[in-house]
Amino acid sequence: MMEHTGSITKPRGFLAAGVRAGIKEKGEDLALIFSERPASIAGVFTKNLFKAAPIQICIPRIPRATARAIVANSGNANACTGEGGIEDARRMIAEVASRLNLAEEDVFVASTGIIGRRLPMEKIVAGIDLAVSSLSKHGGADAARAIMTTDTHPKEVEVEFDVGGIKATIGGIAKGAGMICPNMATMLAFITTDIAITPAMLQTALSRSAEVSFNCLTVDGDTSTNDCVFVLANGMAGNSIIEADGKDFQIFQQHLDSITINLARQIAADGEGATKSISVTVKGARSYEDCRQIAKTIANSPLVKTAMFGCDPNWGRIVAAAGRAGVEFDPKAVSLCFGDISILKNGEPVNFSEAKAHNYLSSKDVEIILNVGDEKWCATVWTCDFSYDYVKINAEYHT
Amino acid sequence: MMEHTGSITKPRGFLAAGVRAGIKEKGEDLALIFSERPASIAGVFTKNLFKAAPIQICIPRIPRATARAIVANSGNANACTGEGGIEDARRMIAEVASRLNLAEEDVFVASTGIIGRRLPMEKIVAGIDLAVSSLSKHGGADAARAIMTTDTHPKEVEVEFDVGGIKATIGGIAKGAGMICPNMATMLAFITTDIAITPAMLQTALSRSAEVSFNCLTVDGDTSTNDCVFVLANGMAGNSIIEADGKDFQIFQQHLDSITINLARQIAADGEGATKSISVTVKGARSYEDCRQIAKTIANSPLVKTAMFGCDPNWGRIVAAAGRAGVEFDPKAVSLCFGDISILKNGEPVNFSEAKAHNYLSSKDVEIILNVGDEKWCATVWTCDFSYDYVKINAEYHT
Repeated sequence: MMEHTGSITKPRGFLAAGVRAGIKEKGEDLALIFSERPASIAGVFTKNLFKAAPIQICIPRIPRATARAIVANSGNANACTGEGGIEDARRMIAEVASRLNLAEEDVFVASTGIIGRRLPMEKIVAGIDLAVSSLSKHGGADAARAIMTTDTHPKEVEVEFDVGGIKATIGGIAKGAGMICPNMATMLAFITTDIAITPAMLQTALSRSAEVSFNCLTVDGDTSTNDCVFVLANGMAGNSIIEADGKDFQIFQQHLDSITINLARQIAADGEGATKSISVTVKGARSYEDCRQIAKTIANSPLVKTAMFGCDPNWGRIVAAAGRAGVEFDPKAVSLCFGDISILKNGEPVNFSEAKAHNYLSSKDVEIILNVGDEKWCATVWTCDFSYDYVKINAEYHT
Repeated sequence: MMEHTGSITKPRGFLAAGVRAGIKEKGEDLALIFSERPASIAGVFTKNLFKAAPIQICIPRIPRATARAIVANSGNANACTGEGGIEDARRMIAEVASRLNLAEEDVFVASTGIIGRRLPMEKIVAGIDLAVSSLSKHGGADAARAIMTTDTHPKEVEVEFDVGGIKATIGGIAKGAGMICPNMATMLAFITTDIAITPAMLQTALSRSAEVSFNCLTVDGDTSTNDCVFVLANGMAGNSIIEADGKDFQIFQQHLDSITINLARQIAADGEGATKSISVTVKGARSYEDCRQIAKTIANSPLVKTAMFGCDPNWGRIVAAAGRAGVEFDPKAVSLCFGDISILKNGEPVNFSEAKAHNYLSSKDVEIILNVGDEKWCATVWTCDFSYDYVKINAEYHT
């Protein structure tokens, strides 16, 4: 069996490393991703008003045509750290740039972990030194591990596809809801591809893709100060560069969506304390946004999530959450299913088998499907249940 | 020691009863409140699109000058029960009206408990029979118990005050977050007063009062299908009737606010699984609504609530919740205190004693105070922590 060397190093021209800098109690905690050629980069970032220092630095630089590297640490979010935190993030960039002979503007930075503490810069700098010397075609899996906090396993995905007769590859890694010390859940995702595409079109593709993937993901409704997703596209596949919407762009968009949705689902399934993966699909509201708003309200309801943990077909909680979502619809037009089991039809309860429903909800993957009207819109949100372990993880550790 | 006979029967001319109809597994589950004279009635109701049958019936009748009775059951919410549920709620009204010789329009109805099941009408009718024959000046405490679901104790409050040289009384009862079978948390509150006031002014007073009390209360962010608050004012205090804003109205408003805030705080402290009572005060945003929106986002954050359960001074979660509240403010102007302990000042972390903060957070009453700017607005939201028992109560029982 071939050793797994990591998804983000699958596209041509990308190297990576994941090393231990000593920020977390144990394990790799510093990741470096490097493109042998200048790459288009696109990014999407948290909308939280409290933006971590690395986020503040990266936002004004995106999109860009000449990106070369991303450095990321876990164990410390570098958020709410004032001007000192901004200096620390700039120094991380400078240390990488000088060792790799890059312009500082072509190096990007991300952090995840505890809020409100300054980075241990000596450890970080030593870690960067080690990471630079460890960069390799085999380092993708190490990088995936190095961005984890309380994730129970690394999250990777890759896809190969044809674009204009040329084979192209996309690889991605992500980390989900967790913390090394009890702190904000944060999400990071880094995606590499060897496709040739302009920064503007890459940003368009990523922004669209984030809407139907990461923005459809919730573990506990708490948007982090550090969420960010980067895509690097270095063009080494050799396709004719994608400069506008068209067939090639659509193919890329479709495969990028499959990568981001896959990573989002991996994050949902590995939410803190999760015992199962839940998808909430809402159909028939007046817009995609309305469908997603209802689905998110259901997915964030502590009463729904604890019922799912208990495998309890307590559908009243689902419709009640839908009814407070702030979206107009007619309660008399609402139908609800758990998978194939019909629970409510046109606003009237169906006489379903509670044993059968309980059995369905005991599986690892649960689908909640709510139809609120006749419109053609549909949105799916991915989440997990709410267990004793969520409380344990978030209450029993102490800062 | 005088026996406690109940707060809502303290104002002149109000009788009450709380009896067992057999809807819940045990205990009183049917309450009846009766005014000897026609009373002004005002009400506020859930904004959930799925409104329970009794809510649908009561909304168009409010405010009104000739109300006489409220009948309420616990154990079954009569929500999502279709046309049949509407008939059941109408029948509850009719049964009370015929036994007490009242016009049906002067009888109001409320329900709380499991969603999606029809009321056991035989038991309800027998319960109404018993409640009518049990009505007395001593029945207020029984009525307070009869509206409980998973509340651990009844919630009552009363106040006496002078209005234009006349002594007037307000009494109130409420039930909070809970369920007899695992279902929507619902809130009911019934307030009686012997003050003379027009229905329109009573409605004005109640609507204002609900904004600063019940609408500042959250246990888990899940707005119920059944929430309702009624105030009955029968005029038997003998004051000159309050027909417009003015000194007497302000006195009444002030005392009504003290009653509703007291009941809201009792509900927060007795939230499902709560080990402590938490008040979140936000100052300095651009409006009262903005302050309240930030405070509610903090109060509903599962990460904040689990940290509070763990007595963990994990302030990053509080500012991160504030930052995603959808309200504009400058993160650099933000200051945070736990009680008297300063944690963050003008956006920069304060070097506080974690031991002292942990000790403060171990008390039964915790204050979180967040200052986000210079404006004079301020809002306080009441909530509780999020414990293993919240998960237990909502996951381990089965429908």
